[in-house]
Amino acid sequence: MEHLSGPAPTGLFRLSAALRYFMGLRFEIVAEDTTTGARAGLLHTPHGIVETPVFMPVGTVGTVKGMTQAQLEDLGVQVLLANTYHLYLRPGHEIIRELGGLHRFMGWPHPILTDSGGFQVMSLKSLGRVTEDGVWFKSHLDGSSHFFSPERAVEVQLALGADIIMTLDECVEYPSSREALHRAVKLTGRWASRAKEKLSAISFQPSASEGAGGWGLGAREEQSAAGIKQKAVRNKTGGSVAENREVLLPSPQSPAPALFGIVQGGVDKDLRRESAEGLLELDFEGYAVGGLSVGEPKAEMYEVAEYTAKLLPHNRPRYLMGVGTPEDLVECVARGIDMFDCVMPTRNARNGCAFTSQGKVIIKNARYARDESPLDPACECPVCRRYSRSYIRHLLVAGEMLGAILTTQHNLHFYVDTMRKMRQSLFFGAFAEFHSRVRARP
Amino acid sequence: MEHLSGPAPTGLFRLSAALRYFMGLRFEIVAEDTTTGARAGLLHTPHGIVETPVFMPVGTVGTVKGMTQAQLEDLGVQVLLANTYHLYLRPGHEIIRELGGLHRFMGWPHPILTDSGGFQVMSLKSLGRVTEDGVWFKSHLDGSSHFFSPERAVEVQLALGADIIMTLDECVEYPSSREALHRAVKLTGRWASRAKEKLSAISFQPSASEGAGGWGLGAREEQSAAGIKQKAVRNKTGGSVAENREVLLPSPQSPAPALFGIVQGGVDKDLRRESAEGLLELDFEGYAVGGLSVGEPKAEMYEVAEYTAKLLPHNRPRYLMGVGTPEDLVECVARGIDMFDCVMPTRNARNGCAFTSQGKVIIKNARYARDESPLDPACECPVCRRYSRSYIRHLLVAGEMLGAILTTQHNLHFYVDTMRKMRQSLFFGAFAEFHSRVRARP
Repeated sequence: MEHLSGPAPTGLFRLSAALRYFMGLRFEIVAEDTTTGARAGLLHTPHGIVETPVFMPVGTVGTVKGMTQAQLEDLGVQVLLANTYHLYLRPGHEIIRELGGLHRFMGWPHPILTDSGGFQVMSLKSLGRVTEDGVWFKSHLDGSSHFFSPERAVEVQLALGADIIMTLDECVEYPSSREALHRAVKLTGRWASRAKEKLSAISFQPSASEGAGGWGLGAREEQSAAGIKQKAVRNKTGGSVAENREVLLPSPQSPAPALFGIVQGGVDKDLRRESAEGLLELDFEGYAVGGLSVGEPKAEMYEVAEYTAKLLPHNRPRYLMGVGTPEDLVECVARGIDMFDCVMPTRNARNGCAFTSQGKVIIKNARYARDESPLDPACECPVCRRYSRSYIRHLLVAGEMLGAILTTQHNLHFYVDTMRKMRQSLFFGAFAEFHSRVRARP
Repeated sequence: MEHLSGPAPTGLFRLSAALRYFMGLRFEIVAEDTTTGARAGLLHTPHGIVETPVFMPVGTVGTVKGMTQAQLEDLGVQVLLANTYHLYLRPGHEIIRELGGLHRFMGWPHPILTDSGGFQVMSLKSLGRVTEDGVWFKSHLDGSSHFFSPERAVEVQLALGADIIMTLDECVEYPSSREALHRAVKLTGRWASRAKEKLSAISFQPSASEGAGGWGLGAREEQSAAGIKQKAVRNKTGGSVAENREVLLPSPQSPAPALFGIVQGGVDKDLRRESAEGLLELDFEGYAVGGLSVGEPKAEMYEVAEYTAKLLPHNRPRYLMGVGTPEDLVECVARGIDMFDCVMPTRNARNGCAFTSQGKVIIKNARYARDESPLDPACECPVCRRYSRSYIRHLLVAGEMLGAILTTQHNLHFYVDTMRKMRQSLFFGAFAEFHSRVRARP
């Protein structure tokens, strides 16, 4: 596979779209901060372009709790995360594959990233046993036993048809002994290699084996070219490969997903380095930093995120899993991270916690019973334009769905808007100023 | 108060808006079916014009469960019903009054009708005791004791600031003895008289005492004229009346609501006639048919609705409370009803029942697990354009909010669209055809 080997383009000026497609670029950096590790980029996926730094709302079972897909679009959400573990158990990845993949199933024609399921099976107390081969776990729904190998995790994610898929990794709890961490780093490395091998063995559209992997194209070009490409595949490959693809993918035209490796190693820098170096040899299309935000002190999280980001290739997207608060996002973008996901804006919303420019607002508090101001007076989201704290408090106290819906909508707006402002500040050379403004928040 | 005493204008042609305002019209009939009692009208309220026949979604505690106000607007919902009993208990009508009334509180600048609370206190098993003076009841939230008199019910509804308010009535269960029904009819009549007297004693803007009652004006004119009118009130009325108004209304500029009387009498036609005649003497701005759809056979409900509608003035809106299925709406419009409310489209949605052109779809049924078709293949609502039965089934099975949200959105669209089509058929002289098409549904 070809990758851009020279220095990434920086600043406001970019290569033309045509040239980029020709070069098979997946991730292009379009602006960089001069004093921190922050950068703005464009991530080209089969279902559209994602502007980074980006926050991915969590749609665990194929829905961001309480939001319609139209509301997510209106908020400017560009990419969703869905949980492989949950979808595998219900409704089942095979059903989703039969129905044309997750995009079609959930009516979301934009980019989707699926995790490998590893974090869930190891954190939902459903863990049976980790072996060299994979992990046994029990369903939280009916207690039934299941097995995920690195290969199986790829297969399930292919059935879902996400744009970005993750390798199965071993997640250990915090704190863990150096020995346990080291074992997890080594196992995660071997599993990453097996996942990569599994994906490489599948024949996607010719562009995949030619280096573009379907990733240089927007969704529209992809679709219109599908007929022609499919013919080419039939001429080039044997029946067995086509069959293989048919069993695994939502449709024979499904483009190749990007596979991201996950760096583990807890807060041990040597182990982080060992983990990263092993993955770099395998050459992934992006790299995630896993095993952070699991209980370690925040300063350590920032330090390890920064240390790990610097180990990763400049021209590949870097994804910090499960992080975090709005402040975390800014701090970690400054440390070189491009992608985030977290349940915080949505889960906290359902518990009545709003993120605002003035800090968190615990909206059920009695002091808001007669408060006519919006959740955040500085906010221009549809919720803050229309509804008062008193109304939203009333809804949450009464247990009305709309309370969770409105607070979720506002919180997601706050997150998406924070990313948008960060990105703009990078274009205008004002990231440092934005950074210090966020730090000065109450 | 002045009312239009001549025959109501019928057919496609209407008086100009300016002329109507001058005449102080509240309800104008703009088309009538030649063979049934069906008619299309315009109901002018301080917060805008409502096209009848109309279905009012139920927003019990100031929210239509699962819907944002923007989604309701997009569906074409013109008027909401809110429950006085629930809002009185939580957050409390005084808080809503202080915050500028229910429209402002819930971010809904369109018409609102509030019930009197009578039905809830007598059906939520919270009933203590009905006396000549009013009804004692216990809160379903904390068991505390409360008392609603006809006057108190008006006061609470004035604090909420709805466009249409209802008189307190005695609702008896089905079946009841003729004696119990008769007693309820008589008490409801006396309470209606007291409610009317209570409202008449309040000095609203001058237009009220001049006959227009604020009702001939759209919300915009109302607002821009408010300053001038308020001055006029101060000149005409004493300080004590102004004080009275200040205590009762969301703002001194609050327009007079329309008060509807409620006809009771169960399925006994003589009692219905007695009840209606008593109310007609009091001259209400609209009349409701209460005490139906409480367990009586459907044929009897239709018959009594028709019989009662014929007793009511041609030029006043007729509101059938708590009805019903989409088929009920069509049958009862044919029998002369203009307004409806019912929890059915929203409550059934949360239980996974979708109303469609092919009848009810119980969407959790296993047969829909792989069904890629929309809830209703003949439907053009945002839900049917985007989502499949399989996805919505998955959401409902997984207990995800979005399952209830999408099914509610679809069901409300189905109801609103049914009313819209009925209205159009009335304009084009095709009501009979529409009527028989609905009757032929599975």
